[in-house]
Amino acid sequence: MIGRELSVKELAKEQITPVEGLSALSLDALTSVAYGPEAILVVLATAGVGALRLILPITIGIVVLLALLVTSYRQVIDAYPKGGGAYAVSRENFGPRTGQVAAAALIVDYTLTVAVSIAAGVGSLTSAFPSLIPETVPICLGILGVITLLNLRGLGDGARAFLLPTFMFIVGLFAVIVVGLVHPLGLHEAQPGKPILGPPGLSTIGILLVLKAFSAGCSALTGVEAIANGVPLFKEPRVVRAKRTELLLGVILGAMLLGLAELSNRFHVEPRTTQTVLSQIMGYAVGRHLAYYVVSLTITVVLALAANTSFGGLPVLTSLLARDRYLPRLFAVRDDRLVFGNGIWALTVLSGVLLVVVKGNTNALIPMFAIGVFTGFTLAQGGLVLHWWRLRPTSWRRRATLNGVGSVVTGVATLVFIFSKFTEGAWVVVVAVPLLIVLFRRIEAYYVASDEQSGVGVVPSVPEGKDTLVVVPVTRVSRLTSQVLSEALSLSSEVIAVTVVFDGGDEGGHETVEADWERWHPGVRLNVVHTDHASVVRPIVAFVDDLIAKSNDQIVVLIPVVVPERLRYRILHNQTDLALAAALRRRPGLVVARVPMSIDARNR
Amino acid sequence: MIGRELSVKELAKEQITPVEGLSALSLDALTSVAYGPEAILVVLATAGVGALRLILPITIGIVVLLALLVTSYRQVIDAYPKGGGAYAVSRENFGPRTGQVAAAALIVDYTLTVAVSIAAGVGSLTSAFPSLIPETVPICLGILGVITLLNLRGLGDGARAFLLPTFMFIVGLFAVIVVGLVHPLGLHEAQPGKPILGPPGLSTIGILLVLKAFSAGCSALTGVEAIANGVPLFKEPRVVRAKRTELLLGVILGAMLLGLAELSNRFHVEPRTTQTVLSQIMGYAVGRHLAYYVVSLTITVVLALAANTSFGGLPVLTSLLARDRYLPRLFAVRDDRLVFGNGIWALTVLSGVLLVVVKGNTNALIPMFAIGVFTGFTLAQGGLVLHWWRLRPTSWRRRATLNGVGSVVTGVATLVFIFSKFTEGAWVVVVAVPLLIVLFRRIEAYYVASDEQSGVGVVPSVPEGKDTLVVVPVTRVSRLTSQVLSEALSLSSEVIAVTVVFDGGDEGGHETVEADWERWHPGVRLNVVHTDHASVVRPIVAFVDDLIAKSNDQIVVLIPVVVPERLRYRILHNQTDLALAAALRRRPGLVVARVPMSIDARNR
Repeated sequence: MIGRELSVKELAKEQITPVEGLSALSLDALTSVAYGPEAILVVLATAGVGALRLILPITIGIVVLLALLVTSYRQVIDAYPKGGGAYAVSRENFGPRTGQVAAAALIVDYTLTVAVSIAAGVGSLTSAFPSLIPETVPICLGILGVITLLNLRGLGDGARAFLLPTFMFIVGLFAVIVVGLVHPLGLHEAQPGKPILGPPGLSTIGILLVLKAFSAGCSALTGVEAIANGVPLFKEPRVVRAKRTELLLGVILGAMLLGLAELSNRFHVEPRTTQTVLSQIMGYAVGRHLAYYVVSLTITVVLALAANTSFGGLPVLTSLLARDRYLPRLFAVRDDRLVFGNGIWALTVLSGVLLVVVKGNTNALIPMFAIGVFTGFTLAQGGLVLHWWRLRPTSWRRRATLNGVGSVVTGVATLVFIFSKFTEGAWVVVVAVPLLIVLFRRIEAYYVASDEQSGVGVVPSVPEGKDTLVVVPVTRVSRLTSQVLSEALSLSSEVIAVTVVFDGGDEGGHETVEADWERWHPGVRLNVVHTDHASVVRPIVAFVDDLIAKSNDQIVVLIPVVVPERLRYRILHNQTDLALAAALRRRPGLVVARVPMSIDARNR
Repeated sequence: MIGRELSVKELAKEQITPVEGLSALSLDALTSVAYGPEAILVVLATAGVGALRLILPITIGIVVLLALLVTSYRQVIDAYPKGGGAYAVSRENFGPRTGQVAAAALIVDYTLTVAVSIAAGVGSLTSAFPSLIPETVPICLGILGVITLLNLRGLGDGARAFLLPTFMFIVGLFAVIVVGLVHPLGLHEAQPGKPILGPPGLSTIGILLVLKAFSAGCSALTGVEAIANGVPLFKEPRVVRAKRTELLLGVILGAMLLGLAELSNRFHVEPRTTQTVLSQIMGYAVGRHLAYYVVSLTITVVLALAANTSFGGLPVLTSLLARDRYLPRLFAVRDDRLVFGNGIWALTVLSGVLLVVVKGNTNALIPMFAIGVFTGFTLAQGGLVLHWWRLRPTSWRRRATLNGVGSVVTGVATLVFIFSKFTEGAWVVVVAVPLLIVLFRRIEAYYVASDEQSGVGVVPSVPEGKDTLVVVPVTRVSRLTSQVLSEALSLSSEVIAVTVVFDGGDEGGHETVEADWERWHPGVRLNVVHTDHASVVRPIVAFVDDLIAKSNDQIVVLIPVVVPERLRYRILHNQTDLALAAALRRRPGLVVARVPMSIDARNR
């Protein structure tokens, strides 16, 4: 399933151009047009049909914020040409504590990106093919499964393979917008009619609702930071190309958002449960014909690819956190395919649970979504203000001011999100982030204590051997017994064989072991332990414990295990060896080895 | 759940009287009145209402067969005062092959007894309380679970505890029959009316149907062999008491069957899906009042106890088969509570599956039921004929003739069952028994081959030690490293430490191990293995394989494992040790030990 083991040398180091950068790093941001405008309309709809017209001014506000963010992140690229994720930037400038906040926010963000992208992609699919609506959750999980598998195989980041769908998506969506603005083809579709009332004034619908709609729409801005994280992937001159990509992303995303908002107004689109807003707009613009279906499927594909980008991000983040000892070490271990498999699985499980809980409904995820991202925005730009202030390059004041404004605006926006959407889902993030931070700190504290206990860093005493006593549990005399005693005698001249005799009576046969031993005379003492309990494990453990208490020697227990050639014959052999090994496992200083004795006893 | 470990001495050896013998050994047979008459009616009903009157002559035929079996089994008790199960008798007289047939038939029989008894018991319950009908399967599984648990605790055979319900059952059922025959109290219940037509002649309904009804009714005879198996449980004089019990059983069972058949005729009872025949008879006899409910619940309890008797039988049988090497050895291993736990679990799983498959419907199980039992009857009595012929005691001809007739009659009955009920379920038994026999033979063949391979029975060569080389994989220098090297040096003066350096580059940190080692100077050589693959397991395995190929020494690998005090911290340590131990496991002659290093690194 996963493919053969890979060597480091086999990993091609791809170097990307700005256009490729759009498909490799910006799909998350670009595809947010599939749910951002809808998120605004869902909030506005609570104030009546007339309020829907406010989508245009709100979108203009969001595009202004986008411009600020793009400018600000172009400066991040200048400052961190080696890639400046929110975690690295805030850790460097504010110290580890703030870094942990950024890391926790990012984990939440990556998880939500996967869930939201997949849910929105399936939403696009079921809008086009309503008969699939009952299968929403299975389809979501199927897409998640495919993405997981590709990433476990290490095929998750094929920037070039993503080029065609990205290109189709951008061209297709602009085509829809242009056709819709100039001469809609789909106006013979059933029309919803136009509202009789004009839009209500701001005072009527309330500033809080506008703020909520604005913050919901900000979900369209998630992902604009990804290019700044991925600077090292670009061809030289990296910084120039990365900044160009960031600008390109800002222009395309802004244009799409404004175009869709205007069309939504013109076509009087209302949010529906069975069809996405984007699908409705497309239907009115070009009609539900071939072009509509092609673009719908393209949207599904690019949203799945957008989910895939989180799989490039989170496992790397968790490996960094594991190396900083905030997460279990196993997140820093690479699989045979050189991917961080444990991080991939963690992301799959978390986002899969989210998708199942909200039943694949994008709008249920939106209230949680922007908080993590905007926390990252705030911390990264705040950190950059400190960065400029410390280094003071030319025009540092202008740069610091820009990032400062960005930080304050996104910080305020974060607070607005939390308070305006708290009961609708934002509380999940408010609970999850501190929990993650507590987890980081406890894990770090454990590792510190563990290192101290294991004496890491101090030069330990020089190791010294002592006498060794080998204990071998036996059940009968056979060639295998001789074999394991030979191994025991290799370890030490002091070997004791031990056998358990059940005094229950009716099984019998054990007295023959002693007789056979006499006849064999292997030069090793046989200790017979009598018991009237059924377990043979306990008497042996008691015997070994007794030896440990009495002796200063290094004690070794060699447990012979018959290993048949074919696995299915294992059940035919006693499993006592496993029980015995488990019972002896936790005695410090005791060496326990199960010694495999291969036999090839096929039915001939 | 299971209780503390038991010593052999704590097992009281109960010695029972004939009356106690009824509750300890005969419940299976006695309780078959709950489904036997119904099984006859279900078959007859296919020939129309008039045919139901044939229940009386058919029951008389069954009671004649019962008399034959009881007489015959009283002779078995004479011949095998140490307990003569069908397996032991046919193995002794016909040899192991026929013994295997008997054993396979018995396994099928025990499993079906559990399933049928529980299903019939729940049928009695749901007849009294029809609102429980939808919960039939869960109630069946619940009762099965309780029986399993009691048997795992070793409390399955409390003959004295079973006395009261057995007594209530016998008295209650006779009371119902007597009241029903003399002066029914329940005749104000809704009456089904009487048939206008008289019973059809035999020629009309066909001899085949009568045979089918007869064979279905023979399910009432299952269990009459149990007393002969349990002779050693009786007080002295054992044989006399056991024979008296067998006779008692025959009289009680015969009287009940005849009484119920007569009442069934008088009340014109027809089989129904929601109420058992026995429940209908009781309703007409005493009315659905207190007495009816008390007896119904008693029937449920004694049927559960009847299922329980199989739990006394099958695990002992499988332990005998395991000792004869026809089943995996683990069936011969006693648990801490001195019960054969694996046999108990096997019976629970098999009968649980049966109950779920037939959805707790007794009548669906009946076609499979009598075949196994009657195969046992045939083989045991056939074996006895040989037994008498060989020993020739006084009046051996009369005895041999009686057993011979018994064997032939039950043999013919077995063939009738198989052919008349083949498509209705008998095929399951016809398939299962040969499969079990094949399984027995393959397992035996494996054990013979395995013993030969392990050199059991030949006096092996005297064990001799050779030089030992200890390999210790290390990741860094710490007190734990020193500790494991001390243990290694105890085993041999030749110790090699080995560490893996990942040439992937970005992780770094490994070069410090070499430097630390230099500074430490532990007197043990450190081997650095470079790799550009992610796995650290493979390079170490390759290193060890290389040593095995080059050296004649005994090679030991000591893998250090950090074991935190609290289990939940385990996830924070690398699991590489497990992977490494697993990868090295199957190399013959190699000794691999994971050495636990306890640390107590709590967050303080």
